[in-house]
Amino acid sequence: MNRSLSIRSSKGGPPGPQTPARKKGFSFASLRGSIQPELSRRLYQVIKSTNNLVSSHEAAGRERETIAKQLSEWGEQTGDDAVSDISDKVGVVLSELGAQEETYAHNLDEARGVLKTIRNTEKSVQPSRDAKGKIADEIQRLKLKEPQSTRLVILEQELVRAEAENLVAEAQLTNITRKKLKESYEAEFAAVIERAEKQIILAKHGRRLLDLLDDSPVTPGDSRHAYEHGNAARQVLNDAEDDLKSYAEHNVDGVDSIIGGDRDAEYVAGHNDNYTRTYTDNGDGRGETPVMTGGIGQSVGGDHHVPAAADVPYVSPTPTSSNDDRM
Amino acid sequence: MNRSLSIRSSKGGPPGPQTPARKKGFSFASLRGSIQPELSRRLYQVIKSTNNLVSSHEAAGRERETIAKQLSEWGEQTGDDAVSDISDKVGVVLSELGAQEETYAHNLDEARGVLKTIRNTEKSVQPSRDAKGKIADEIQRLKLKEPQSTRLVILEQELVRAEAENLVAEAQLTNITRKKLKESYEAEFAAVIERAEKQIILAKHGRRLLDLLDDSPVTPGDSRHAYEHGNAARQVLNDAEDDLKSYAEHNVDGVDSIIGGDRDAEYVAGHNDNYTRTYTDNGDGRGETPVMTGGIGQSVGGDHHVPAAADVPYVSPTPTSSNDDRM
Repeated sequence: MNRSLSIRSSKGGPPGPQTPARKKGFSFASLRGSIQPELSRRLYQVIKSTNNLVSSHEAAGRERETIAKQLSEWGEQTGDDAVSDISDKVGVVLSELGAQEETYAHNLDEARGVLKTIRNTEKSVQPSRDAKGKIADEIQRLKLKEPQSTRLVILEQELVRAEAENLVAEAQLTNITRKKLKESYEAEFAAVIERAEKQIILAKHGRRLLDLLDDSPVTPGDSRHAYEHGNAARQVLNDAEDDLKSYAEHNVDGVDSIIGGDRDAEYVAGHNDNYTRTYTDNGDGRGETPVMTGGIGQSVGGDHHVPAAADVPYVSPTPTSSNDDRM
Repeated sequence: MNRSLSIRSSKGGPPGPQTPARKKGFSFASLRGSIQPELSRRLYQVIKSTNNLVSSHEAAGRERETIAKQLSEWGEQTGDDAVSDISDKVGVVLSELGAQEETYAHNLDEARGVLKTIRNTEKSVQPSRDAKGKIADEIQRLKLKEPQSTRLVILEQELVRAEAENLVAEAQLTNITRKKLKESYEAEFAAVIERAEKQIILAKHGRRLLDLLDDSPVTPGDSRHAYEHGNAARQVLNDAEDDLKSYAEHNVDGVDSIIGGDRDAEYVAGHNDNYTRTYTDNGDGRGETPVMTGGIGQSVGGDHHVPAAADVPYVSPTPTSSNDDRM
């Protein structure tokens, strides 16, 4: 990477956004954008590009879910119980990673919507600037041509009114611009953090699933030990669901709660409660709003939980603050 | 979401991967996939779909970088110093988020490559199975037609050889399958975690930039206070670079070091060293390998650092373990 502290300084030659009309395949919106006054045209471009960004993440999310199914089906036809079960469970995790990617795309789209308020205000301020300028020009022209014209008085009055009107418009523009710019990118950064934290939870549980697959080589003729981690694998998915659920519970107030140590302190507390609950009143998981696996009850009976726990003692692979607990 | 503990259980009707030949726009590779024996055809589909996933994330990364430039250029033409500087700096952060998205796509592609080893082994095992079966069938046919045929002896010998050969092939297949399946998805989950942790660092510093934009409304006629956070904004980018750099330094050994508390303990230690360094031998940043902003020296003079720090005392918004320090 060779990027300076300014994006601008890194632009060489004519920047793309300044010649939108020459590009192909324009939507009506972006065509309008290209004929906008300078004032709102650039933001049209940002909003349009962000729409492409949203589509890319949507596509990635859908693709993930397809891969998840294909991987699971591949595993099934290997005829290897261990590969079959682990590939299926990893598929569940991948599918959830995809769902999180789609949620991210949706949140980016919301943040994008906020920028439209700025763009619309820019659009509406332009005529006010033009009107003011037009009257001022006319006054200059008249002063030269017919300095005695009685219209000058009228025009001067109009100019005062136009200036007053424009003063308000410009104040509205700066107020909206700063407020909405912050609002939009705060929402965008919050979306980045939420996707990241949820996907970390999922990926770390995904690794626990892979750890259940014995990949020690067999010699020709020898057969594999029977696969015994079915319960443990189901438990990993339960744990992932619990972690996502307590993450959601402790981030209801969004942005602020996502950052800082307080969130994580709560998080772990919440997580532990949650975990205990798994072994008490969570026989089949139907009792709760599913965060990840809606049909979780279908394949996990409560009787699996204890052996499962015995099978792999549960250590949350998620937030590092769970380590502080033990310190 | 209504997903069960199994992806399979959620498949309704004929699963897509089983009718690939009916889809359009096939690449040569995927066309070969569709005429593969069952054994390797499904994994062809997984590998092909993963290629689409990689492309989506590449596209998202590029789009981010475009948006970054456009946002910066929009801010420049607002004529508002504060909006101009903050939008430019936020652009730098967005651009880096995009670069991380592209790195992620690259890492997914590497993980995808590992699956090809399984696919190729599946392909090579099929003939061995077929050969064995063919000989066995022929023996059955002969036993009925001409039980006395001397060819039977030869065929029995061939069958033993074919069985021995296949025994090896099947052992190779299960060994490769389990080893490479783990390897591929461990790499994939590591990539998810790396993107997530780096993007969290960036997003949290991005928020610090937004905090420097005063969005208190002005009344018509009043003018804004002069923008005074230029140094602070530059410092935020320096801090982001330092955090990414120490993240990279403490994750050289990849996977394992990314998880667990040890990593974070190191991380913070490393981070603090790094931070101190910023104020000692890091006058203009040329001394170090740039992690984020290659041209950092161009626009930040060492003399900016101290006032900048005075301006906003630096508190790393990144890993929560920085809070543990204070506990």
